[in-house]
Amino acid sequence: MTKLDQTIAKIQPLCTRSMEEARRRQNSLTKPKGSLGRLEELSVILAGIQRTPSPVIRDKVILTMAGDHGVVDEGVTLYPREVTVQQVLNFLRGGGGVNVLARHVGARVVLVDMGVAHDFEPAEGLQIRKVAKGTANMLRGSAMTREQAVQSLEEGIAAVEEEAAKGMDILGTGEMGIGNTTPSTAIACAVTGVPVPLATGRGAGLTDEGMKRKIAVIEQALEFHKPDPKDGLDLLSRVGGFEIGGIAGAILGAASLGIPVAVDGYISTAGAVIAYLLCPETKNYMICSHKSVEVGHEHMLRFLDAEPLLDLDMRLGEGTGAALAISIAEASAKILAEMATFESAGVSGPLEPGGRTDGE
Amino acid sequence: MTKLDQTIAKIQPLCTRSMEEARRRQNSLTKPKGSLGRLEELSVILAGIQRTPSPVIRDKVILTMAGDHGVVDEGVTLYPREVTVQQVLNFLRGGGGVNVLARHVGARVVLVDMGVAHDFEPAEGLQIRKVAKGTANMLRGSAMTREQAVQSLEEGIAAVEEEAAKGMDILGTGEMGIGNTTPSTAIACAVTGVPVPLATGRGAGLTDEGMKRKIAVIEQALEFHKPDPKDGLDLLSRVGGFEIGGIAGAILGAASLGIPVAVDGYISTAGAVIAYLLCPETKNYMICSHKSVEVGHEHMLRFLDAEPLLDLDMRLGEGTGAALAISIAEASAKILAEMATFESAGVSGPLEPGGRTDGE
Repeated sequence: MTKLDQTIAKIQPLCTRSMEEARRRQNSLTKPKGSLGRLEELSVILAGIQRTPSPVIRDKVILTMAGDHGVVDEGVTLYPREVTVQQVLNFLRGGGGVNVLARHVGARVVLVDMGVAHDFEPAEGLQIRKVAKGTANMLRGSAMTREQAVQSLEEGIAAVEEEAAKGMDILGTGEMGIGNTTPSTAIACAVTGVPVPLATGRGAGLTDEGMKRKIAVIEQALEFHKPDPKDGLDLLSRVGGFEIGGIAGAILGAASLGIPVAVDGYISTAGAVIAYLLCPETKNYMICSHKSVEVGHEHMLRFLDAEPLLDLDMRLGEGTGAALAISIAEASAKILAEMATFESAGVSGPLEPGGRTDGE
Repeated sequence: MTKLDQTIAKIQPLCTRSMEEARRRQNSLTKPKGSLGRLEELSVILAGIQRTPSPVIRDKVILTMAGDHGVVDEGVTLYPREVTVQQVLNFLRGGGGVNVLARHVGARVVLVDMGVAHDFEPAEGLQIRKVAKGTANMLRGSAMTREQAVQSLEEGIAAVEEEAAKGMDILGTGEMGIGNTTPSTAIACAVTGVPVPLATGRGAGLTDEGMKRKIAVIEQALEFHKPDPKDGLDLLSRVGGFEIGGIAGAILGAASLGIPVAVDGYISTAGAVIAYLLCPETKNYMICSHKSVEVGHEHMLRFLDAEPLLDLDMRLGEGTGAALAISIAEASAKILAEMATFESAGVSGPLEPGGRTDGE
């Protein structure tokens, strides 16, 4: 049995007993039933994932997976390819958006080189798990071999295992890879059937001319590969990316360890789609952090039947949305743990027991 | 000149020079222009409010204003009136939802007794600024006299001044008052003209029967008083509440001191509407924290032309939404202060200077 198969085999349904107990406690706290809305729901989901009625979010880790993309040769991006390396170095110095927001919420950021076209020196906060120096150009052939696809997933699993050994109550996903909205859009269109022009966004800020090229490239790639939309490995190898495989693997790994995952934005959701195809149960471990400005995102969210927590017009990636969502998840666990109950606080309950305490 | 007039006279337009400088810095940070969406906007607004291109959110204060309401005699609530006192005591012990979320975001909660029907002992974290022991029943006459309305506003101003002297980079509003969705809905309908049945919610969880009573009470009160929808003092005195006046005053006070205000949910927004009527410039100092489940909220938000930051199906009040929004505001200021620039990080810029860097 491969590491991938072993990991998938370990993923369990959420613990309904813990969820019921958490919900019972939520209903005893000094507030009208349901009045904290998604914070209440989230705390119950965390209970089910962590398999305890008292979930705790203390050790918070954001894995920012980096990779390069052969398809940038087709002119699908506004920024040059070397920005992937430059940004990884920026993140290692703590100067990126994800670093700032992770510090704000008390999470640590770990960079994972899944396939950057550069040899990094070993560094604090960097895991080197390079599958190759960038994917191949998906217009000329598969972005990666099937073996490389499995490898990227297994490296993602291993990345989580390494950090979980140091403590991890929640995982946030993130990525850096110039060109990676192109494979993400290819995945989005393949699984949802939405026409490419309707799911393609400007990424980091493409011109109108660039947008036309990007749409044509994705359409040609899908036409050429005809990936099987039900086969996550086929999809990942033909039109994916190493960081997307890494994210999918990280989600599988976290789920196998009973760790909730704050899925960041567009590219991370493409990784989540791959994880879902490989193991539908992973969906219950995902917290969709925010709705990205990238137009294809909502199609993938609908495919996953996921309601994002936040909508702040963000489209940076890196794990910035995940950082903010992690803080909301932590808040939800603290509500469950720290609020007084009607009984403990001596607060009177409703006048009419038949009151519509379930909210609107 | 009264304290109220003096305070209003001190409120200035936002500092556009600080805003321009903040925006320029945002555009130099290592991210596609605009890709942090509302975080970027928010940091620029904070710069304008604090009158510095480098806004700081460190000292965070939530003022939770409490008051009782004569109109509860009409059976418009699910919970008995004594819950106002019980919850204030719960909050003083740190067991309320607002306490948990304030601790989570590093804010301090100060309770303000604006008009609870109970004599509190002096306590740490409690300001006693009681106008009266609850408002009068708005169905039988004005909820308060015009003098009391002015007094509630001035006590709200004084509450902010007292805490600002200890340090306050941002204010969050909050409230506790059994029955206070009724005056809030009366205010919402008076200013927006929306029919009462379309703007009345279940508050803490009213039955269908209770809903009918609540709608009838608000309709009768508005019919009886015919408050002037352009006169904040008239509205507050006829159908308002002491904590609503306190919130309006706190917003005026904060604006006069150049302090941004995270406006919580439904009741706080009714206070914000009063502040806006008294001084439209206050609108620029308001950060609308979240969209409440209470159905009348969106009408008031539209009246204020405000886009809430969060939508988490919450309807607890107390300042819980403000706490979460304060954390987002702090994140936005940190992005501006702490992210590396393209130049400092040695990251390459766009390939095509004409790139659509303004996002979608």
